[in-house]
Amino acid sequence: MKLFFLFAGLSLSLLAVNGDKSDLTTANNWQEPAAGTWKLELGETDAELRYTDLAAEKPRLEALKKLGPAKFPFTKSAISTIKTADGKLMVRIPCDADEKIYGFGLQMKNIKSSKKVLELKVDHWKLGGGKTHAPVPFYISSKGYGVFFNTARYLKVYNQLGNRKDALDNPPEVDRNPPPSQKGSQPGPWQALPAASAVEAVVDAQGLEVLIFSGDTMLEVVQRYNLYCGGGTLPPLWGLGFWHRVPAAFNEEECRKEVADFAKHDIPLDVLGLEPGWMTKSYPCTFEWQTERFPDPKKFTQDMLSQGVRLNLWENPYMSKDAKIYKDMYPHAGSHLVWLGIVPDYNVQEARDLITEQHYRDHVSIGVSGYKVDEVDGYDHWLWPDHATFPSGTSAESMRQTYGMLMQKMFYTDLFKKHNTRTYGLVRSSNGAASALPYVLYSDSYSHSEYITGISAASLGGILWSPEARGARNGREWLNRIQTVCFSPMAMLNAWATGAKPWTFKDVTDPVREVINLRMRLLPYLYTSFADYHLKGIPPFRAMILEQGFDEGQSKVIAGKLDSETNPYAMGQIIEKTDQYMFGPSIMVAPFYEEQHSVRSVRLPAGNWYCFYTGKFMGNNKTIKVTAKELKDRIPLFVKEGSLIPMLTKSVNNSRDAVGKDLELRLYGKKTATYSLYEDDTKTFDYLKGQYRHRTITCTPDGKISEQAGKGPALFGKVTQVKIMTK
Amino acid sequence: MKLFFLFAGLSLSLLAVNGDKSDLTTANNWQEPAAGTWKLELGETDAELRYTDLAAEKPRLEALKKLGPAKFPFTKSAISTIKTADGKLMVRIPCDADEKIYGFGLQMKNIKSSKKVLELKVDHWKLGGGKTHAPVPFYISSKGYGVFFNTARYLKVYNQLGNRKDALDNPPEVDRNPPPSQKGSQPGPWQALPAASAVEAVVDAQGLEVLIFSGDTMLEVVQRYNLYCGGGTLPPLWGLGFWHRVPAAFNEEECRKEVADFAKHDIPLDVLGLEPGWMTKSYPCTFEWQTERFPDPKKFTQDMLSQGVRLNLWENPYMSKDAKIYKDMYPHAGSHLVWLGIVPDYNVQEARDLITEQHYRDHVSIGVSGYKVDEVDGYDHWLWPDHATFPSGTSAESMRQTYGMLMQKMFYTDLFKKHNTRTYGLVRSSNGAASALPYVLYSDSYSHSEYITGISAASLGGILWSPEARGARNGREWLNRIQTVCFSPMAMLNAWATGAKPWTFKDVTDPVREVINLRMRLLPYLYTSFADYHLKGIPPFRAMILEQGFDEGQSKVIAGKLDSETNPYAMGQIIEKTDQYMFGPSIMVAPFYEEQHSVRSVRLPAGNWYCFYTGKFMGNNKTIKVTAKELKDRIPLFVKEGSLIPMLTKSVNNSRDAVGKDLELRLYGKKTATYSLYEDDTKTFDYLKGQYRHRTITCTPDGKISEQAGKGPALFGKVTQVKIMTK
Repeated sequence: MKLFFLFAGLSLSLLAVNGDKSDLTTANNWQEPAAGTWKLELGETDAELRYTDLAAEKPRLEALKKLGPAKFPFTKSAISTIKTADGKLMVRIPCDADEKIYGFGLQMKNIKSSKKVLELKVDHWKLGGGKTHAPVPFYISSKGYGVFFNTARYLKVYNQLGNRKDALDNPPEVDRNPPPSQKGSQPGPWQALPAASAVEAVVDAQGLEVLIFSGDTMLEVVQRYNLYCGGGTLPPLWGLGFWHRVPAAFNEEECRKEVADFAKHDIPLDVLGLEPGWMTKSYPCTFEWQTERFPDPKKFTQDMLSQGVRLNLWENPYMSKDAKIYKDMYPHAGSHLVWLGIVPDYNVQEARDLITEQHYRDHVSIGVSGYKVDEVDGYDHWLWPDHATFPSGTSAESMRQTYGMLMQKMFYTDLFKKHNTRTYGLVRSSNGAASALPYVLYSDSYSHSEYITGISAASLGGILWSPEARGARNGREWLNRIQTVCFSPMAMLNAWATGAKPWTFKDVTDPVREVINLRMRLLPYLYTSFADYHLKGIPPFRAMILEQGFDEGQSKVIAGKLDSETNPYAMGQIIEKTDQYMFGPSIMVAPFYEEQHSVRSVRLPAGNWYCFYTGKFMGNNKTIKVTAKELKDRIPLFVKEGSLIPMLTKSVNNSRDAVGKDLELRLYGKKTATYSLYEDDTKTFDYLKGQYRHRTITCTPDGKISEQAGKGPALFGKVTQVKIMTK
Repeated sequence: MKLFFLFAGLSLSLLAVNGDKSDLTTANNWQEPAAGTWKLELGETDAELRYTDLAAEKPRLEALKKLGPAKFPFTKSAISTIKTADGKLMVRIPCDADEKIYGFGLQMKNIKSSKKVLELKVDHWKLGGGKTHAPVPFYISSKGYGVFFNTARYLKVYNQLGNRKDALDNPPEVDRNPPPSQKGSQPGPWQALPAASAVEAVVDAQGLEVLIFSGDTMLEVVQRYNLYCGGGTLPPLWGLGFWHRVPAAFNEEECRKEVADFAKHDIPLDVLGLEPGWMTKSYPCTFEWQTERFPDPKKFTQDMLSQGVRLNLWENPYMSKDAKIYKDMYPHAGSHLVWLGIVPDYNVQEARDLITEQHYRDHVSIGVSGYKVDEVDGYDHWLWPDHATFPSGTSAESMRQTYGMLMQKMFYTDLFKKHNTRTYGLVRSSNGAASALPYVLYSDSYSHSEYITGISAASLGGILWSPEARGARNGREWLNRIQTVCFSPMAMLNAWATGAKPWTFKDVTDPVREVINLRMRLLPYLYTSFADYHLKGIPPFRAMILEQGFDEGQSKVIAGKLDSETNPYAMGQIIEKTDQYMFGPSIMVAPFYEEQHSVRSVRLPAGNWYCFYTGKFMGNNKTIKVTAKELKDRIPLFVKEGSLIPMLTKSVNNSRDAVGKDLELRLYGKKTATYSLYEDDTKTFDYLKGQYRHRTITCTPDGKISEQAGKGPALFGKVTQVKIMTK
């Protein structure tokens, strides 16, 4: 391929590479910073903010090495670049027309991005076209490699689109006209999107760093990405319990009653989320306790802790004039206001010090467990404009792409890790290299099917997604939503406006309680899944395409039909199978939702799959139908052959009570299986210093178990029950 | 206000102005190129393509002078700029929070743009956010001025949004929390969009030219814009007759039969549109006659002309390898293909010569009347990427913004004006300064209500919109769509895929024929309305907000209701009254559409308004209900007091037959009225040399008429009937 450089008069120094093709593949541009990981630096990469600059932890080089040898996925020289006269920098990555491209962060409708143009920008995903709360510029190819555009700028990506006039592999032209001999006016077999064999990414920046991850499988590619970005986050055990956010202006008394009501209804509770009313002022915010609502925050927080309930505080970053630190913060804020509040520039150390000192003093030091960081995503009509300026010199664009990450990393590092205490919280925007950040994303959209797709999409880009339940039109919807919630990275009910409780719909209170209890019983399995995220980069909840044996070809293809009023280009449609996902190594989750509220189809991958509840054999590489009735209103869960699932023998009211509790082991399939249970102190960062252990448990088909524990802290009790779940 | 400049290290020379506030208002930056028109040059404006560079005609300075004196609408020093570190150039125009902002081209849902962020880019309007087939960067304020950002780049505009931290006029903060004394969790009277008093426009460019037009009324602002952009277009008279596009692969025989069928059904026809099948190949195109379908194009074209029917040829610009001029064009094409066709760079003279010579030889010289230029708009997945390069050095971005205009201007100038023959055609993208271009816009969307809004929106930005009819689900819809079509800049049925005819729905064939006949009878009034567009800048079809006495406050405001699942910010909604519009000086059109298919409400502006058909007094400054039944299935038309409407005494089968035909005059109201009828040769550019005349006709309430004709060519016959339409 021919390289094509057009240098603008004013930007002669912008690009370090030149027109000589070989230059791109010399040591000057290429590095291999970790096993199976290659880095290409184009132009002045130091002039631009990279997502990896904001990663919470350093690359886990040893773990990357353990993944084994890997080879570069294509010819380096096949990568080419253009620097346009108007300052845009493009990199072209080869990609066969028949490869499937997945990823690009929190895409909520589809996870496949072949034949799409995406403008990756932090914004509400409903705007479409690549805008989303977490537009991670990372894609994974079905051929087993991943590409990460490591730049905190608006990035536009043309996936398998854009034929170049000088390319040698363009398909032949097809006449859209029918042959003259043909009667009638229907056009020929022409297609609106000709095959193209590249991904072209363009950014208006001085430099661009591209990272390429190799892998034998797509999962291995994801693992490499996560490990390079610091490893997946390991939340405190309490973060994996049940969360409930109270209405926006609840006071202390109402909060205490809410907690008591949970106990009265026998519903587990680990975290109570306070919405804006805890502050003296919101939109813009003061971050200071409203003492008429909360007369003694410390006593309240400690009382809650003594009941095993932690507090999570809502905030958005926009600071009111009434905040005590406003005057000191003012010079460190950007040129524009959001909801009339100043926008602190947390790239500035003084700004970080001001907010973290205040937060530590007023919240964390009295026992607050973490934050929900709202509205760091968009829309444009709310946030600072693209021409806003910030004291650190960071562009408005890069601030938009990273504000959510900046907040996450600042809180993680300066408020919690500094004090050797883990946190787990929520944030409404994230981006590349976020794997190690202990935050889940959420959205103001409320489509259950999209919420389920979000779980899969998040797993492809080092982020976590919470399909929070806010309310429902009826008991069936409420149950289905809470079931999905309980099989997600954060099991949360967000009733800030509805005041809904788990027992709001009486007709489903029992199965709602049952699924929350099931989540609690599965804490050993769930916690170990997160440990695998941290240690091996394996996401705890995963898109089916990462599961070996899943036939993605089962996605439904709807051929396009010409209609001048609705479809003049006869465009087809692909309905992807993203309504089921993997949880941990062994469990497949297929929630009921929307029209599929009590009957739905499930695609079983290759291998033998069993019903989680009964052990009944369900099939192998086939599509089955399941009903709520046969499952007694429980969420459909399937376990694959050769799996061992550790659970608490019974549910607990919060994660504190899980410590030391005995285990039930379930064996699915007819073979001896092994499980490696992770244990640590559940709440400090000592695990980063090796203070953890694995208990390797083996179970034979006749229920005999043996166990080997490594050195380190114990967490759960003994295995007291074994169930052979095979019928 | 304080000016804030941040200079990037690499762009020291980019901005001609400096940090001294007074500089922006000195003669260096400000010019007054025409009466009531001010120009502000920021940075290196010559480095960027301006829309006015592509205007088809020069500013009509004399006509601008005639509009009378005007004063600059605000303090020049209130305009400020920012040049950001990442190369963005922002200009901030003062704008009170209570001003209403209209315009920005073909916005199809609303014409008001207050409190919106728009990213103006040529694309399909369905993508939203400012993307549209004609994203004219021009807005009009209810305070009587207009601002035109004269740059062919993607432009982002923040309308009355974005409070600056150092602004002195920010509203006070409002606490979203309710007071602690308040029980329950409902938030306070906070609003999600605080008042802001500026329009901020930002472009990633080396320079930006801003034009400011003054006016006593919003209409006068629009007139100034149009006159500065060369005056509105004056189509040939035949362009205002009835158009019909045949199915995509019709051959000569089928076309001849179609024309005969129109005659048989007694339906007027001026233009027959041929879709892709006329070419040897389409998508990509050859631009050469498919001689198996059209064995003798010249004879066919001439035969059609002899029947008074002109041909319009579909094309898109993307050139096939099979085109005879392909090899010569190849070096003048951009780096990327569209549908595998090369994309000629028509900024290059050789490319223009190649295509216009071929088009003239093969089409225009044998009698073809014009073109439909398709697919010059988007989507991104079809057109060239933002990093494509073009031989002229024009950026991909500027090419995207102007390709439709480039084509229009090239055809207008080199194919038609050069040969002193007018044309009228269709194009799927246009942009700023397009007033003088004889093309109407259309879209693949097919919402009737949006099509009606499009007529209004177009009038605010020097463009024309065709609400073409393609098909319908039933006779009522068909009738309603064709009625709208007949009261628009181009009365066209586009049956390329459906094969629909005016008589397809037998139950409505009579009223369909009637409204097409009414269009033909109104040709004298319609043609004069276009002459007013050309001479005075008054759009022939206009948004109601340009009509004095229209109470825009009648728009429906729906207050926002908090709902955590659907509306968490309690955002309100404004339903604008854009389902009616003005036609010429006197007629208001209020089509039936969608749910309002046979009964609808109409807002009558201040003044007395009469039914067009019966002369019945309908009201003054009030909202009325009209039904299809009372109107005998005719489109609702209202005429204002003191109006004289000239019509042909009877319909004609095409515009050729209108020449020399006698006139009927209708007087509405109880006062003596005057009308100035425009006449010229209907098809050459001699009118630009003053070869036209006005016939000033006066009619008293008792029906006495007097007439004074200027020098110049005659067009219509005598006034032989006078009707006093006042009951």
